[in-house]
Amino acid sequence: MGSDSDIVLSSRIRLARNINGYRFPNAMGSEEAKKVINECSGSILEGNSTLANSFHLIEMSKLSSVDRTAMVESHLVSPVLIDNYENSAVLLNDDKTVSIMINEEDHIRLQVIFPGLQLDGAYELADKIDDVIEERVDYAYNQKFGYLTACPTNIGTGMRASIMIHLPALTMTRNMNGILNAVTQVGLTIRGIYGEESDAQGNIYQISNQITLGLSEEEIISNLTAVTKQIIDKERAARKWLTKSNANALEDTVWRSLGVLQNARILSNGECLNLLSNVRFGIEVGIIDSIDLLTLNELMINTQPATLSKIEGQEVTESSVDIKRAEYVREELKKR
Amino acid sequence: MGSDSDIVLSSRIRLARNINGYRFPNAMGSEEAKKVINECSGSILEGNSTLANSFHLIEMSKLSSVDRTAMVESHLVSPVLIDNYENSAVLLNDDKTVSIMINEEDHIRLQVIFPGLQLDGAYELADKIDDVIEERVDYAYNQKFGYLTACPTNIGTGMRASIMIHLPALTMTRNMNGILNAVTQVGLTIRGIYGEESDAQGNIYQISNQITLGLSEEEIISNLTAVTKQIIDKERAARKWLTKSNANALEDTVWRSLGVLQNARILSNGECLNLLSNVRFGIEVGIIDSIDLLTLNELMINTQPATLSKIEGQEVTESSVDIKRAEYVREELKKR
Repeated sequence: MGSDSDIVLSSRIRLARNINGYRFPNAMGSEEAKKVINECSGSILEGNSTLANSFHLIEMSKLSSVDRTAMVESHLVSPVLIDNYENSAVLLNDDKTVSIMINEEDHIRLQVIFPGLQLDGAYELADKIDDVIEERVDYAYNQKFGYLTACPTNIGTGMRASIMIHLPALTMTRNMNGILNAVTQVGLTIRGIYGEESDAQGNIYQISNQITLGLSEEEIISNLTAVTKQIIDKERAARKWLTKSNANALEDTVWRSLGVLQNARILSNGECLNLLSNVRFGIEVGIIDSIDLLTLNELMINTQPATLSKIEGQEVTESSVDIKRAEYVREELKKR
Repeated sequence: MGSDSDIVLSSRIRLARNINGYRFPNAMGSEEAKKVINECSGSILEGNSTLANSFHLIEMSKLSSVDRTAMVESHLVSPVLIDNYENSAVLLNDDKTVSIMINEEDHIRLQVIFPGLQLDGAYELADKIDDVIEERVDYAYNQKFGYLTACPTNIGTGMRASIMIHLPALTMTRNMNGILNAVTQVGLTIRGIYGEESDAQGNIYQISNQITLGLSEEEIISNLTAVTKQIIDKERAARKWLTKSNANALEDTVWRSLGVLQNARILSNGECLNLLSNVRFGIEVGIIDSIDLLTLNELMINTQPATLSKIEGQEVTESSVDIKRAEYVREELKKR
């Protein structure tokens, strides 16, 4: 599970790589794009490593618009990959912890997502897969600048490490502004996963490194892990305070949120995320024990519009999406 | 049940009577008060009518402060009777439809409450009991002014007829101001049972006659019944509109309200009444069928502070009343 999984939802390592001899995706035609897809996917699917059997290739152009958006909602691919869907593809492994995007902003965007706080573990796997690809692919690499990338902000290690973290207690105690400022000052970026930074729906934030050049991968990971641990400590202290000094109000918020999720007939995405955040908090601090965090993770993704359409087996229109979302949440919570 | 019991909670007839030879309660001493109590209660308890067996006398001074307030919350006695508790009493019948207050503002305040819209039936019983009392008691009566009362606004018939009515749809469609004005213009009074008139908590209103002199009892009742029926029609039209044009929003409101009642850990009196109103509405229009209106009526009264204290078996402090109320509501709804 990774450590601190009551606060950290997931750890992600993303490596940006490009191949010598091809233009960057934003400048290439469809023929060239096809060659890049073939070369990249071949390095995994036709390689000697055991990875070959656990990956499969999905060409974005073969998917419906809803299916593509649903993959973004599940954090399996990025919006940029979708924008370039005519020329892009993704290699996914069976348990969906690894996604190798081809012809995103760079030729290759290798992404590993692990639950909880385990950036080291995620990097270890990413590094291993990176080596497998490099056996067959000639990476664009410069002695001075490291891995060359389409955007200079990714140059050097080409690595972006990030964690997704649930901070309801720091939000309820109005400490998030201080956290936002502090994180930014140590060269990291923090933003709400849903909604605006300052009004993050669901109280879920992503913290990632801003700098990719001049630091080693290990330094980036150790910096981010250290800062994350400090935030975890602050969140734990805030949770302790809330559960001690404000137990009734906290329980009231948590149980009401569950009651609304179990009963509402109309649920906007934003309200749903905030209610799920409160229930998640309730589970994390032991107020609710009839629902587990995996269910909450599923609900968070499955209530996103495109994923909801996939589940319903038909495109959910904008006028009915809040009704369908409420229906889906009720049915899922009834099962528990 | 009386008619229109999905909208009209209850019909009430109250007769004010005084006895010749005694001063009004606000001017009498305790000796005189005792005589009035004896004379009034004797007329029922020692009379020849079959009423004798179904009534019992409760002296207000023998009750604890909590018990007295709980009787007000149950609409069995008035706040004025409680204010004068050292010298007042009440005769209650077994099913609590009849309450004869002694030494309230007048010597006798005879009150009959029936469920639904049945002012005629309530008056018939009140009139019958009035006759029984009059067999032994010499009422203060004047050929020109009718029954003499402590306050001139009650002179004449001494009758106040009122109905308690639940108007959620007229409230939701913002039609209550028009109703409030119209009712006042035809010589009737309308007020919220809980909270202020313009912001009636629980959307429950009392409509009663303002005039007691110059109209016969039958005219008063027929006026009030006619106006009530008009309001019932308007409420029905608003309910129809809401259930047709706004079904999802209405169901959402109703079910969320039930969800909060079933889950909240802190419930103020005002919020509780409003949520109960929404659930009652849901039952009345057939959205909810697992709970009945009697349960709702009980919850409305039993969540009032003094009644809650009686149920808990100890005085509920102001700091804990919202927590105890939430606890009580959860447990009661779990039973259904």
